[in-house]
Amino acid sequence: MTNWTELDQNVRTWIHEAGERIRQSFKTELNIKTKSNRNDLVTDMDEATERYFTENIRTHYPDHQILGEEGYGDDFKELSGITWIIDPIDGTMNFVHQQRNFAISIGIYDGDEGELGYIYDVVHDELYFANKGKGVYMNDVKLPKLDPVPVEDAIVALNALWVTKNKRIDSSILAPLVQDVRGTRSYGSAAMELAYVASGRLDAYLTMRLAPWDFAAGKIMIEELGGVVTDLDGNPLNPLNKSSVFVGKPGLHETILTDYLHRNK
Amino acid sequence: MTNWTELDQNVRTWIHEAGERIRQSFKTELNIKTKSNRNDLVTDMDEATERYFTENIRTHYPDHQILGEEGYGDDFKELSGITWIIDPIDGTMNFVHQQRNFAISIGIYDGDEGELGYIYDVVHDELYFANKGKGVYMNDVKLPKLDPVPVEDAIVALNALWVTKNKRIDSSILAPLVQDVRGTRSYGSAAMELAYVASGRLDAYLTMRLAPWDFAAGKIMIEELGGVVTDLDGNPLNPLNKSSVFVGKPGLHETILTDYLHRNK
Repeated sequence: MTNWTELDQNVRTWIHEAGERIRQSFKTELNIKTKSNRNDLVTDMDEATERYFTENIRTHYPDHQILGEEGYGDDFKELSGITWIIDPIDGTMNFVHQQRNFAISIGIYDGDEGELGYIYDVVHDELYFANKGKGVYMNDVKLPKLDPVPVEDAIVALNALWVTKNKRIDSSILAPLVQDVRGTRSYGSAAMELAYVASGRLDAYLTMRLAPWDFAAGKIMIEELGGVVTDLDGNPLNPLNKSSVFVGKPGLHETILTDYLHRNK
Repeated sequence: MTNWTELDQNVRTWIHEAGERIRQSFKTELNIKTKSNRNDLVTDMDEATERYFTENIRTHYPDHQILGEEGYGDDFKELSGITWIIDPIDGTMNFVHQQRNFAISIGIYDGDEGELGYIYDVVHDELYFANKGKGVYMNDVKLPKLDPVPVEDAIVALNALWVTKNKRIDSSILAPLVQDVRGTRSYGSAAMELAYVASGRLDAYLTMRLAPWDFAAGKIMIEELGGVVTDLDGNPLNPLNKSSVFVGKPGLHETILTDYLHRNK
């Protein structure tokens, strides 16, 4: 049997230690290399952070599965037993250019049920933590359930790319939403944007393509608070597949799905 | 004669005092009212902060002009003598919804020359300060001059609204830029976005409509670092007029102007 309390304590220790290493790294020059996609900068720190987590998990929990962005995890096809889904630094471009607006994201699943979700805003030392059935915390503050909000009062995270010609979505579909909401924002880190929806700083977030490690923790967090997490078609997310992602407050999610995403279907 | 060193010390004292009051206000409930435009929330704190600055300026510098967003300043038609241009809280919607991503912005002009520029990121306690001819600082750190960067490596702040149908700009003009740059961001506070260009966290920022108090400080800062500040047509900004605003690193600004904004002219 898994001792979840002890496991939670271990994760917190590792996250804070990893965060401290990242903060220290800002004082030394970063050695940046470019992955296949020029939009996807990866740094030594990214890889070192994932290695740090995977080595600790393998030592303490040798029978757990690990899925990680940088490839230090395992190769598997289904969620069974306990699975850790890790993004060591979500928002690498921000990490490099801004030294803020990035996060460590860890989702822990038991079978296909999300149990624990962690998003750590390293620079602000803010740990968002979801415990399925027991609530969501930002550091010591328990976050309230998410309430409905009308479209015209909503602040929605949405990158400008999705309302220009792109290969993922017809640019005319989301344009009316951009015009009708109170405002749009774009921060360049999915984990941060999901944590911002959880904490009410944003009301919804839509994006066309995320990997499991981008949303694994945020999904647990937003659902625990009564928010809705789906793909752009309104279908549930599979934490092992890449997917479009659409999260929002209850009511608002349904309205956007019905009045904007499905309007022309 | 103006004692600029003493004036700078006064501004810093007032900005830190105002920032402390704002941070304290997060512990009490905000009393929000709505201005004519629903996008323009104004809070008691906004007005109180502007009053605090104007009262101090009038006491210490009775012959200076004041232009402020909330209307506690003066009514005048030209820049003569010393003019303070003040936005007590730039990014009011963020202030209300997020309690971050907003700033105090103060630009001080002698005639039509920008002399001192202050952008204070209250939550991060980061004061960006420009002293014409003497450099720009982020707290104690002197910021380096801005270097050219190619379009494909640039991170550009640009709201999704400007690439959908809107009343300020043809949505097709900026769409190719959104597709060609490394990434776009949108933070919802012009002063923050200008300070981010100054500190290299962003490479350029374009928006269709700002008031003088939104850009008065940022203009001084970016120009002091060798960046370029114009309207969307490439013309200089008048610190007394509303205008579109386009700022960027040297080289990048010229390329965007030539290859995107003027391409169809």
